[in-house]
Amino acid sequence: MSTCDIALVGLAVMGQNLALNMASRGFSAAVFNRTESTTREFMDRAGNKAGLKAAFSPAEAVGMLSSPRKIFLMVKAGSPVDQVIDEFVPLLSPGDILVDGGNSHFPDTVRRTRELAAKGIRYLGVGVSGGEEGALHGPSIMPGGEPEAWPFMEPILTAISAKAGPGGDEPCVAWMGNGGAGHYVKMVHNGIEYGDMQLIAEVYDILGRAGGLDAAAQARVFSEWNKGPLASYLVEITAQALSRIDEETSKPLVDVILDAAGQKGTGRWTAESALELGIPIPTLTSAVEARGLSSLKEQRVRASRILQGGCEPPAVNVADLVRDAEQALYAAKVCSYAQGFALLAEADKVYGFGLDLGQAAKVWRAGCIIRADFLDDVTAAFKADPALENLLEAPVFTNEVGRRLPALRRLAGVAIASGIPAPALCASLAYYDGFRSEHLPANLIQAQRDLFGAHTFKRLDKEGVFHAQW
Amino acid sequence: MSTCDIALVGLAVMGQNLALNMASRGFSAAVFNRTESTTREFMDRAGNKAGLKAAFSPAEAVGMLSSPRKIFLMVKAGSPVDQVIDEFVPLLSPGDILVDGGNSHFPDTVRRTRELAAKGIRYLGVGVSGGEEGALHGPSIMPGGEPEAWPFMEPILTAISAKAGPGGDEPCVAWMGNGGAGHYVKMVHNGIEYGDMQLIAEVYDILGRAGGLDAAAQARVFSEWNKGPLASYLVEITAQALSRIDEETSKPLVDVILDAAGQKGTGRWTAESALELGIPIPTLTSAVEARGLSSLKEQRVRASRILQGGCEPPAVNVADLVRDAEQALYAAKVCSYAQGFALLAEADKVYGFGLDLGQAAKVWRAGCIIRADFLDDVTAAFKADPALENLLEAPVFTNEVGRRLPALRRLAGVAIASGIPAPALCASLAYYDGFRSEHLPANLIQAQRDLFGAHTFKRLDKEGVFHAQW
Repeated sequence: MSTCDIALVGLAVMGQNLALNMASRGFSAAVFNRTESTTREFMDRAGNKAGLKAAFSPAEAVGMLSSPRKIFLMVKAGSPVDQVIDEFVPLLSPGDILVDGGNSHFPDTVRRTRELAAKGIRYLGVGVSGGEEGALHGPSIMPGGEPEAWPFMEPILTAISAKAGPGGDEPCVAWMGNGGAGHYVKMVHNGIEYGDMQLIAEVYDILGRAGGLDAAAQARVFSEWNKGPLASYLVEITAQALSRIDEETSKPLVDVILDAAGQKGTGRWTAESALELGIPIPTLTSAVEARGLSSLKEQRVRASRILQGGCEPPAVNVADLVRDAEQALYAAKVCSYAQGFALLAEADKVYGFGLDLGQAAKVWRAGCIIRADFLDDVTAAFKADPALENLLEAPVFTNEVGRRLPALRRLAGVAIASGIPAPALCASLAYYDGFRSEHLPANLIQAQRDLFGAHTFKRLDKEGVFHAQW
Repeated sequence: MSTCDIALVGLAVMGQNLALNMASRGFSAAVFNRTESTTREFMDRAGNKAGLKAAFSPAEAVGMLSSPRKIFLMVKAGSPVDQVIDEFVPLLSPGDILVDGGNSHFPDTVRRTRELAAKGIRYLGVGVSGGEEGALHGPSIMPGGEPEAWPFMEPILTAISAKAGPGGDEPCVAWMGNGGAGHYVKMVHNGIEYGDMQLIAEVYDILGRAGGLDAAAQARVFSEWNKGPLASYLVEITAQALSRIDEETSKPLVDVILDAAGQKGTGRWTAESALELGIPIPTLTSAVEARGLSSLKEQRVRASRILQGGCEPPAVNVADLVRDAEQALYAAKVCSYAQGFALLAEADKVYGFGLDLGQAAKVWRAGCIIRADFLDDVTAAFKADPALENLLEAPVFTNEVGRRLPALRRLAGVAIASGIPAPALCASLAYYDGFRSEHLPANLIQAQRDLFGAHTFKRLDKEGVFHAQW
C-alpha cells in the first residue's frame, strides 16, 4: 500500500494541475480533498491516470506514502493551512515532510517551519508561479524552509518545473533559503508582477489616449514588441488579450471589461514589507495603489465630470510615440526590477534567508507570470557580480537603460501634459533620477525636522550629530 | 495633599513643556519622571513655578491627585507605555483616567483602551502635535478613546491648546472618537506632514537645479509664498531654514547638512494603514519612500558617477518657474490632503471611530506642524458637506486646484525633462488625473488576470462576473 511518492492535498485547479504534472513525470501521487466529490471529479477528469490514487481521509492519504512521507498542500493561504497542518501532523512521524505550495504570507511560513521543527516535522514553504497552465505544464518553483527536507523534494520539483535556457533544459527551481525564503521570493515576484502589469497598462493608456490606437492596433504593437527586448509572457498575453473580440458585442473584449482591478494581497504584502524594511520600491507600490484607485469607479465617474484637466496635449507622431513607448517600458521595467531585487537583498540581510539573488532571477526565466527574456541578463548580472547592490549598476543595464532614458522622459512628459495618469512610469523615472542624484533635497527636510522637533542632522563636511539653535 | 488637577509622567522636552503649559493656564500638576534627577532638573528649570509639584514615585504622584485622578503620560511609544501603565494601574481606582499623549500606534491604543476599560480605568489616546514650541505655547490636540473620560479632560486640554480662527479664540482640540481615533488622526497628520515636507523639498530642488536659485534667493521666495495661499508653518520655517548661515563655514546651513532624511515611523504607519485599507495615498507614500532613498547616500554617490541622465533640460524663465512652482505646490498639496482625508474616512468606517473629518481639519489649523491658512477652507468644505467623499470635489478646491493644473503639469514636465526626481509632485498629479479618469486602463489588468489566473472580470455593459475562455 505505502507506495506513493507524495500526497497532494487540496484539489482546486492549481492542486489538480500540479498532481497531473507530477503523474505525467512518472511520480505516484495520493490525492485528497476535504470534499469527497471534488476528489472523485478530479479522478474522472484525470481518467484514472496511472500514478494517481484517490484518498478520502488524511489518514488514508498518509497511509499511501512511502517514507519519509511527503505531503504537498495546495490550500488557501491563511488559517486553512494551519487547519490542514493540524489534521495531518498527528498522523506523521519525525522526519516526514510537509510542503505548503500556496501563496502563504512569509511570516506564517517562518512560524510554521519553527513550530513543526519542534515536532520533528520538516516543513517547506514553496512559492509556485505560473497560474493554471504553469501548474500543469511546468511552473517556476521557489522552495524555502527546512534545508534538510530539500534533497527529498528536489527530484519531484525539478521534474515538474518549467525549463529555461538555450537548450530548454535548465529547471526553474532552486533552493531559496531558510524559513520564509521561498514565500518571500514568491511574494516579491508577485509585487514585480503588479509593477509590470501597471507599466503595461499605462503604456496602453497613453497609446490609446494620446496616440489614438485602438485595441487591434495595440495588439499588433505588443505582438511586435514581444519579438524584441520586451519579449515576455505578460507582453505576449497583452497582445492576446487586446486582440480578443467579445462575441456578444463584436467589440474588442477589453473595451467592455470594467476598469476596476482586483487584488489578492501579495502585491500589498510586498509594499508593506518594503515599508517595514525601509527600502523604496515606488514602482511596485504605485501599482498596488493604482489598483486601489481603479476600484473607486463611481467616484471617478463623478469626478470626471467636474474636475478640470488643464492639459495642453503636445502634438504627437504616432510612430515616434510607439517607438518611445517600447523603450520607455523597457527602462521603467528595469527600474522596477532593480527595486524588487534591492528589497530581496535587504530582506535576506534582515531575515537571514541565505538568498542568492541570481538564483531568484534564474527560476523566474520560465514558467512564471513575469518570465521574460531579459531575465537572462539579470541572471548573468548577478552571476558576474554576486554582491551587486542595485541592478541599475550592472554594466548591461547601465547601458541599456541609459540609452532609453530620453524616450522614457518623453513618454512621461506626454502623459503629464496630456492629463493621462502614469504613476508607475513616473515612479520608475523618479527612482532612477533619485538613485543617480548625488544630492537629494533631503538636507532641507533634515533642517526642517531639526528646527521643529530637534531631531538633529549630520553634516557633509564632518562626522557627528548636530542640532542648531534655530 | 490630594489637590493636583493632573499628573504629568515623563519629563522629556515634550512632557516638560506640556507641564509648564498646564501650570501657566492655572492648573496644578504633579510631575514625575523615572529618573529622579530629571524631575529635579525640571523643577529647577521651572523655577518651582506655582502649580507644579515634584513626585518621586508613581504612588506619590497618584497621592497628589484629586478624584477622578487624571494621569497624562508622555513616554516613548511602544513597550514603555505599557510598562508605565502597569506601574500606575494598581495605584488607581475605577473611574480614574489614564491619558497617553505620545505618538502611540493606534492598534496599541485600541488594545489599551479595551484592556483598561475591563479594569474600570478610563483610557484616552491623545495625539499632540506642535513639537517643543507647540507643547509649551499651545499644541494641536487630537483626543480619542473612552468617551466618558473626555468631559474631565476637556477643560485642561482646551486651555492648553493652540487657538485658531479670525478671533484667535477657537481651541485646536476636539473629540475625535472611540478607541484609537485620536492617535489615528495624529498618525495621518504626520503622514500628511511627510507629504508636505517632500513636496516642499522637491520644489526647492527644482528651483535650485533648474532655476539656479541659491539658498538665499529661495529663502526670499518661500518667505514671499508665506504671505499668499501657501501660508503655513512649514513654508515659514522653510524660509527660516534656508536663510540660516552656518557659523563655521559661512555657507548657508542647508548646504552643509547631509541629504539623508530620518524618520520615526508615523509616516510609515500611515502608508501601511492605507495599504491595509486599500486607499491610495500615493503622495504620502512616495514621501516615505523618498526618505528611504535619500538614506542610501553611498549608493547614490556611486550611482551618480555611472548612470546617464539622458536629459534635455528645457529653457527656463526663472520668474515663470517660481510662479509655476507656487501654484504647483498648492495644487499638489491639496491632492495630498485629499488622500489623507479619504484615508481618515475609510478608517472611520472600518474601525468605527465616529470621526468628524471637519473637526480633524479644524484642530489642525493652529498649533501643529501642518497648520496652514488653507485648512480654513478644508474645515469650511467639510462643514458645508459633511458627507464629502473627496476634498477635490469640494467646489473651492475643484476651482483652486483646477486653475493651477497647467502650472503643476509644467513644473513636473521641467523636472522630468531635466532629470530632477519629483516623486511626490508626480504622484499628486497622477492621483488627480487618475481620480478624474472615467476610464482607467485597469480593464487591461483585469483581462490579463483572467487570462493567466482565471480571476474573472466585470463588464461595463451588464451586471455579473465573467470568465473568458482565452
